[in-house]
Amino acid sequence: MGKVIEGFSKLSKSEKIDWITKTHFKDTKLAKKRLEQYWNNDSELQKSHDEFIENTISNFYIPLGVAPNFLINDKFYSLPMAIEESSVVAAAGNSAKFWSTRGGFKTEIIETVKVGQVHFLFYGDSKKLHDFFISKKEELLRSTDSLTKKMDRRGGGIQSIELVDKTNRMNNYFQLHLRFKTDNAMGANFINSCLEQVAKKFLALSEKENLSKKTNKRLEIIMSILSNYTPECIVRASISCRVENFILNKNGSKGIDYAKRFINAVEIANIEPYRAVTHNKGIMNGVDALIIATGNDFRAIEAGVHAYAARSGEYKSLSNAYIKDEKFCMELTLPISLGTVGGLTKLHPMANWCLELLGNPSAEELMEIVAVAGLAQNFAALRSLITSGIQKGHMKMHLTNILNQLQANENEKLAALKYFEEKSISVDAVEKFLNKNTFK
Amino acid sequence: MGKVIEGFSKLSKSEKIDWITKTHFKDTKLAKKRLEQYWNNDSELQKSHDEFIENTISNFYIPLGVAPNFLINDKFYSLPMAIEESSVVAAAGNSAKFWSTRGGFKTEIIETVKVGQVHFLFYGDSKKLHDFFISKKEELLRSTDSLTKKMDRRGGGIQSIELVDKTNRMNNYFQLHLRFKTDNAMGANFINSCLEQVAKKFLALSEKENLSKKTNKRLEIIMSILSNYTPECIVRASISCRVENFILNKNGSKGIDYAKRFINAVEIANIEPYRAVTHNKGIMNGVDALIIATGNDFRAIEAGVHAYAARSGEYKSLSNAYIKDEKFCMELTLPISLGTVGGLTKLHPMANWCLELLGNPSAEELMEIVAVAGLAQNFAALRSLITSGIQKGHMKMHLTNILNQLQANENEKLAALKYFEEKSISVDAVEKFLNKNTFK
Repeated sequence: MGKVIEGFSKLSKSEKIDWITKTHFKDTKLAKKRLEQYWNNDSELQKSHDEFIENTISNFYIPLGVAPNFLINDKFYSLPMAIEESSVVAAAGNSAKFWSTRGGFKTEIIETVKVGQVHFLFYGDSKKLHDFFISKKEELLRSTDSLTKKMDRRGGGIQSIELVDKTNRMNNYFQLHLRFKTDNAMGANFINSCLEQVAKKFLALSEKENLSKKTNKRLEIIMSILSNYTPECIVRASISCRVENFILNKNGSKGIDYAKRFINAVEIANIEPYRAVTHNKGIMNGVDALIIATGNDFRAIEAGVHAYAARSGEYKSLSNAYIKDEKFCMELTLPISLGTVGGLTKLHPMANWCLELLGNPSAEELMEIVAVAGLAQNFAALRSLITSGIQKGHMKMHLTNILNQLQANENEKLAALKYFEEKSISVDAVEKFLNKNTFK
Repeated sequence: MGKVIEGFSKLSKSEKIDWITKTHFKDTKLAKKRLEQYWNNDSELQKSHDEFIENTISNFYIPLGVAPNFLINDKFYSLPMAIEESSVVAAAGNSAKFWSTRGGFKTEIIETVKVGQVHFLFYGDSKKLHDFFISKKEELLRSTDSLTKKMDRRGGGIQSIELVDKTNRMNNYFQLHLRFKTDNAMGANFINSCLEQVAKKFLALSEKENLSKKTNKRLEIIMSILSNYTPECIVRASISCRVENFILNKNGSKGIDYAKRFINAVEIANIEPYRAVTHNKGIMNGVDALIIATGNDFRAIEAGVHAYAARSGEYKSLSNAYIKDEKFCMELTLPISLGTVGGLTKLHPMANWCLELLGNPSAEELMEIVAVAGLAQNFAALRSLITSGIQKGHMKMHLTNILNQLQANENEKLAALKYFEEKSISVDAVEKFLNKNTFK
């Protein structure tokens, strides 16, 4: 059963590694060597990576790939993509190439407002609470002046504050609902600091004005926290081309036939949640690869995006496709809150590198590029699903991985790639093939 | 505007880097150096990482931390967590410690069935289609024998196949809905290969039986693909302790008061989607850190989990808390489909290391550990939200990051950590503090 280790976080890195490898691994030496093998040579650089989180023992490598040829609003970009899944970068590059000769990607920022809430219980007269809030609204906002000064200068800050009565859903439950703009920052620290300040002031004022008393606690703050649901922080990316140019492969079908199949496939994702989840997962392959590469937080984006996909009451496709004026049109609308300053964006040297690759975009420009990556990925997935099927491309990469796992040499790899072109691939089958044949 | 580069994917790694750095960076040399700085010394090892995806130019480091003291089903674990966000590993460690003296975490696998679908249009008589499907069901299943043989031996394979009429949602739209078990593999390749085989056979049989004809195409397969929505692949993790032992900090409150506040906070996430999204995002901080560390695909898990959170028609909390028999109880139910074989699990040496740290778990055991990581994270987030607020812990890490960014030395760091204990933290304020004072 083992036992608790006390004070682990206070041990040095090498002491932590000693304990971890001694207590959990058969071959302590090898386990240690593996961790060290992934450390950076530059110990200063390694130290800065170690300090990003707690109890760091090594670096987990995510491959960083590049997808060139993205024509976005008439300008070419190469997208940095940090992702472990094969085929994603290749798919992005293929989409980019296809659309580069068909007008490229267009984008538009719809809105950039983020939300934070103070959640509280109030046991008194709700009319009195309402009047109190109205009379103190300005004072509440002013209480954050020292926090918002800098953001105000950048054109951000608190946009509105409202009292929301939620007692129809839960006894005595109210909110202060605040809306923010945060310029080029994702803004989590800024928003949370403002909310905690507002909550503190709100409670203090309520006690001062006898709306609540310390002794009988008629007002209880439960928590103050930003929301990762950002339906007012929205970007749209779109592509379109004349139907006759919508030729998805060389099977000889007409553009209109491909377009119809494609639109059917999107419509299926709109009405069948089992399909919608995977359809949107494909979009997020592109989105997250850029989010990670630029030092942003993908859990925040994922949660907001999927909740948005379910906003109608049914989980649906985030993208849309149709024919209009003899053009095939496809668009993707995403709620994404991200930053190009703050957090790890400037601290992680590789995130910094990726932002430079993109021309040091503003947060709004990065939202646009990220939405394009999602749309490109969605287009590529549907393109292969409705033509050759998803497995053809996947299996080639899968085969390469199996060959590496079996430590095949270059001659064996070439022979296997040829042999398995039209055959089912499994570790078993590849192993048999390698054992049965001799290669020179 | 730039122009398209042809044949980029066929360039060598160094040719790719030459082109990327020359066309996108002011300081080409520095941009190259930065990429190379993150390469592994061992060129064989680096090559295997390069081959995971396409157009790889470097490695993106995600810090790998460890959270010890997780008592899960009466056994202690140390969890490997690959995550860039500060406070997550610390929070996991704190939760683990708290519950290690209160009975630890309990888990249970509810089900492990995954779904894949063949989506098709049929323009004929639906009664005939139904009869045809019933008569061919066994033949369809048998057509996958060569693919499923090995999985059958491992207790997996196709569990069921059904024809589903979806014409009430979309004209002529039907599905073959298949359910799978995939043992210790996540199973995406297996499921997709089976589906494509079934679709091929289904179309061939329909043409042979004159249900459809090549000439008038009464049956059109749109696509065959697994679903990342896995409401039948479910794990539950839970914690509980006597209410009087539910003491969340040293403010002197009673266990019952903490429990009530805590339960209110969970209930708020249940009825307010703005809160639910962030509540569940916190859960996924723990889940994804393990998913990445073990070489699994977090986009698949994210999509499935959030769609599951919205299954009632309203986006809700994934966790639940209540008092029963004078005990505080909390549980988390998650749909997670993952693997401990296949994909990168064995190919990525660090993923391999992380699996060994966990005692080389089966897929079911890993589901349990992942759910515990999510529950621990959720508990930790709520614990700080309803006591000191989220910013206190966050800000300390934030301060460390700012100090590193400003290249503060050790003395400056110590002084700043002390000075900012009770003050608002911003890059500005820290810069001012460092400039105003001298440190020795």
